[in-house]
Parts: sequence; structure tokens; C-alpha cells
Amino acid sequence: MPSIAYFGPQGTFSEQAARAHAGDEDALVPMRTVPLALAAVRAGEADIACVPVENSVEGAVSATMDALAVDEPLVAVAEVVLPVRFSVLVRPGLAAEEVRTVASHPHALAQVQGWLGEHLPAASPTAATSTAAAAVGVLEGEWDAAVTAPVAASHYALSVLATDVADVDGAMTRFLLLRRPGELPAPTGSDRTSIVVVAAAERTGVLAEMLTELALRGINLTRIESRPHQGQLGRYRFYLDLDGHVVEQRVGDALAALHRRCQELRFLGSYPKAEPSLAGAAVLTGNTDHDYAAAGEWLAAVRGGSTP
Amino acid sequence: MPSIAYFGPQGTFSEQAARAHAGDEDALVPMRTVPLALAAVRAGEADIACVPVENSVEGAVSATMDALAVDEPLVAVAEVVLPVRFSVLVRPGLAAEEVRTVASHPHALAQVQGWLGEHLPAASPTAATSTAAAAVGVLEGEWDAAVTAPVAASHYALSVLATDVADVDGAMTRFLLLRRPGELPAPTGSDRTSIVVVAAAERTGVLAEMLTELALRGINLTRIESRPHQGQLGRYRFYLDLDGHVVEQRVGDALAALHRRCQELRFLGSYPKAEPSLAGAAVLTGNTDHDYAAAGEWLAAVRGGSTP
Repeated sequence: MPSIAYFGPQGTFSEQAARAHAGDEDALVPMRTVPLALAAVRAGEADIACVPVENSVEGAVSATMDALAVDEPLVAVAEVVLPVRFSVLVRPGLAAEEVRTVASHPHALAQVQGWLGEHLPAASPTAATSTAAAAVGVLEGEWDAAVTAPVAASHYALSVLATDVADVDGAMTRFLLLRRPGELPAPTGSDRTSIVVVAAAERTGVLAEMLTELALRGINLTRIESRPHQGQLGRYRFYLDLDGHVVEQRVGDALAALHRRCQELRFLGSYPKAEPSLAGAAVLTGNTDHDYAAAGEWLAAVRGGSTP
Repeated sequence: MPSIAYFGPQGTFSEQAARAHAGDEDALVPMRTVPLALAAVRAGEADIACVPVENSVEGAVSATMDALAVDEPLVAVAEVVLPVRFSVLVRPGLAAEEVRTVASHPHALAQVQGWLGEHLPAASPTAATSTAAAAVGVLEGEWDAAVTAPVAASHYALSVLATDVADVDGAMTRFLLLRRPGELPAPTGSDRTSIVVVAAAERTGVLAEMLTELALRGINLTRIESRPHQGQLGRYRFYLDLDGHVVEQRVGDALAALHRRCQELRFLGSYPKAEPSLAGAAVLTGNTDHDYAAAGEWLAAVRGGSTP
């Protein structure tokens, strides 16, 4: 019965992501901020933290990333990808044409502007501190409607006026489930590895060299982001997500090469991808574990004095 | 007397950044969201938009970047970098020990947690929709104190309890001033160029190749970020900031090379860097405009049949 700390309050997309991963027995614990959710796991007060890492509609992802790069290391064991689709909740009995105010987190309101204009043209949008706080405000009579994560409907005694609300199709938001370092998840053949690197020197081309280490081993990059390193202008951390699992030879070899090139290299986990990718799943010729084993045997033979 | 649309309300860091750039005669216009500030410039209702692009304490930078990558192109003509240092405002006459509640944007509260614990231990932090909205709340008696941008003190009749408040020294937030395309700012010798690229093919190593085009010309990268391309999994836009001005030969040559390699290449401007960098300002041997001119003359001579 592990406990999962998530970025609350109850009814956020982070809770929705935690539920997508959790078993029936797991205890879900809302935390006030993302860093507090991570701190709870570091302190052993929770087993797993569920935090947004990409395209969040409810908070600053950069603060999350900064918090993962320092302090005690945490390691991702799973990711959850959710479609950015909202529910619109109203006080029971209220009809659409009676809605005069609609509240949500500003990031969420920005993503349903078109829908609101079409379906609730008389409602004036109001910013709340989170999508879930907007639902609480409706409950307390502060606003008529709230734009929320679908899971909010299960916490608050409100009516669902609409679901699957989004101006743009296909937008996704991504979460990681992190725990203290331990046994790695087994490779599935469709895994992702996350790392944070700080180059050993701030030379022109140093990032091109690091990415070439990956490319030479046929490793596909799925995300890259630079962040200033502890406020020092001109020094950067790079956050990389790449295809593959660290137990695979090509990934391990590339990470070892980065370790030689980097001042800091933090492993943030190898975990199954939420959607198995169609393209890019096949390992490029010359980069399979078999290729690495054969090359290792050849090298050992040469060093041993035989000429295979 | 140009008008500058910024991410409001009055008293935000975006206003502070706009003021750092504006002349005395300029009209500053608060807009409700970043996309609305950009839309005002596209529609000709404002001359310049001042929007956060990095490490914002008041909103989602990713939404800004997405808005810059589509619709009518806008071009940056200046950047403003501000230290992330807050002021704490209270109702006139209220002493520190009387402060029971302190409000701000959650991102701002997260960055002054240590300071609040030390200086206002009895105050419970409350989330507001922006740092400026927190000041309005104090004015209306909703909270005792607000953590705000320094400029908020000039708009709201509140007392300054503390200034230069920040848990971590050296954190910076960055803004761009954007206008409709026109004459470029003249090169100063310490400029930055911003672009958005979408690779022509989603091959392994395509980003390493693009960055190598920059590295081979001695161009220093100062920022990189990937964003999903219109919600398509596995397709990415890359946002790059690099040292140099597009009128310089090595930068122009590199951008032309990227144009050959990319499906989309959007120029977001060449503008003076806010802080002239000490390292990296010198152009690497073989990459000066003089080197390019000499190489061009040599090539023209060879093509003309002479052997220089």
C-alpha cells in the first residue's frame, strides 16, 4: 500500500495522473507545492511523488525540474501522459445560460477561450489559483462554473456541464512518478531515460558534441531543455529525455561517454514510455546489445593476442 | 510615443521590464494574458509587446513560446533581464509582527519560503493569481501582506516592509520586446539571435546535426528548448538562442544552412544582449566577417579561372 504524494489540492491533473498509476490500495496524499511533494519522498514520508514535468496547465514545470536536479536524487519509475481536456463543473441545477462567471487556473482558461466564447458567451472568466480551487469556489458560491481536470467531479458535489473541453486537439501533459533510488524497472523494449547534465566546460559546440554521442549510438532524443545553472549566467544544465533503457548497452555506453564529458550527470530514471512509439522503437543496425557483445568479444580477442 | 503592451495587471515583473526599456513618453498598456499582448501588436493596437520568455515567476513561458511560433511573425528588438527579487508590501501602519497572512503568485511564494519563515514566521502564505493581484488584495483588506515586483509599490498605496527579498541569490527572469517585422536593430558586437526550427525529418541525430552547423561556425548557443509540435507526439519545435547578429556572416551562413535542413525556420530577432558577455564575445578564428569575405573572394577567383 504505497503512498503517493501529488501536487494538490484534490482534483488536479496531478491527482488524475497519480490515479492512472495507483492501485486500489494506494494512499493518495495532496501536497501544497511540487517541491513539497518531492521533499515528502526524500524524507520517507511518502513512497512516490507524482509531479508534472511537461506542458503543465497548473504550475511551473521549470521549478519542478530545478528541484529534481539538486538535493537527494530521486528516480522516475513510470510516466503518465494525459490529454489536456477539461471538464466544466457548475452548481447542481444551474443551466448553461445562467452561468455568469467561470473560474480556473489562468493557464487552463487560456486553453478553453474558444470553447467558452462559443458555449458560455455571457460568462466572464476569472482566474483562480488552481483548477481544483476553482471547483471549491463554485461550491462556496463564489463563481458559477469551474474549468477543471475530469477527476475534480469525483471530489466536489457539482454537476458536469461539459467534458472533453479543449480548443486544440491533441495537447498532452506529462507527469513522472518518482521514488528514492532502488531497483530499476525492467526494460520493456519501449523505454525512456531521463538525465540532467552540466558540461565540464562552457565551450562553443559542447552540446553538439554531447548530442553527437547519442546520435552515433542511434539514440533518439525526445526532449531537451536548458536551464541556467544556479543563476550563473552562461552556465547551463541540460535536461534530456532519450529513447531506451540504461541496461541496454548503447544507452549505458552513451551515458558513460557523457559521464566522461560532463561535470555533473544525474540519472533521473529509465521507465516504460506511456505510449509505445511506432517509429524509433527498432534499434539502428550496429547498436543492438548483440552488436555490442560481438564487438566486445572481438576487442578482447585482439587484446589477448589472437586475430579473429 | 510608442505604446507597449505587457502582461498585466499593473505592478507585475512584465511592467517592470517594460519600464526598463520604455522612454518617458511611452504608453504602457496592461493586458490580461501574454497571448493577448502579442495579439495587440499583431493587430496594430500596440507597437511593442513585453512578455516573459525565461524563468518567469508569474506565468507559463511555454504558452508564450508557442504563441511566438505561430500566427503573424513578431520580431524581438530588445531583451530585458531582471533579478528575481521581490518587495513585501503591507497596509500602511502595519508592523511585521502583526502580519498574519501573506499572499502572492504561487511561483513567487515558492521563491521566498525561507525569507518568510525567518522574517514573518506567524504569517500563513496564500496563493493569489498574480503578484499584482496580491497587492490589490492587501489594499482591499483580504490579506495583510503581498510579495510583489518592486514596481508594484508605485501603483498601490501600500507600505514597503522589505525589498530585495529572495531565498536564492542570482536568479534572473528574462523578457523580450517584440514588434512587427521591420528594420533590424543595428549590431552592437554583443547581440543575441532567437529562432524557432522544425526539422525536415524526424531522424535520430537531426538536432545534433543542426547544432553542429552552429558549432562549426563558432556560434555559441545560449538556450535550447524543445516543445511538442502542435500536439503531434514525436514531432518537435526547437527554440534556440545564439550569440551573434543575423547581419554577421557566420550567423547568416548558419541560419541559411538551417534553412536548408529545416521544414520551418522562424526568425525571432537579433537584438543587443542585456548583459554584454565577457567570455564568448570574441569571434573564433576563421569565423569573422573578414574571413568570410576573403573566402568568398578566393572562391570567386577559382570559379573565374584564376588560381590565387
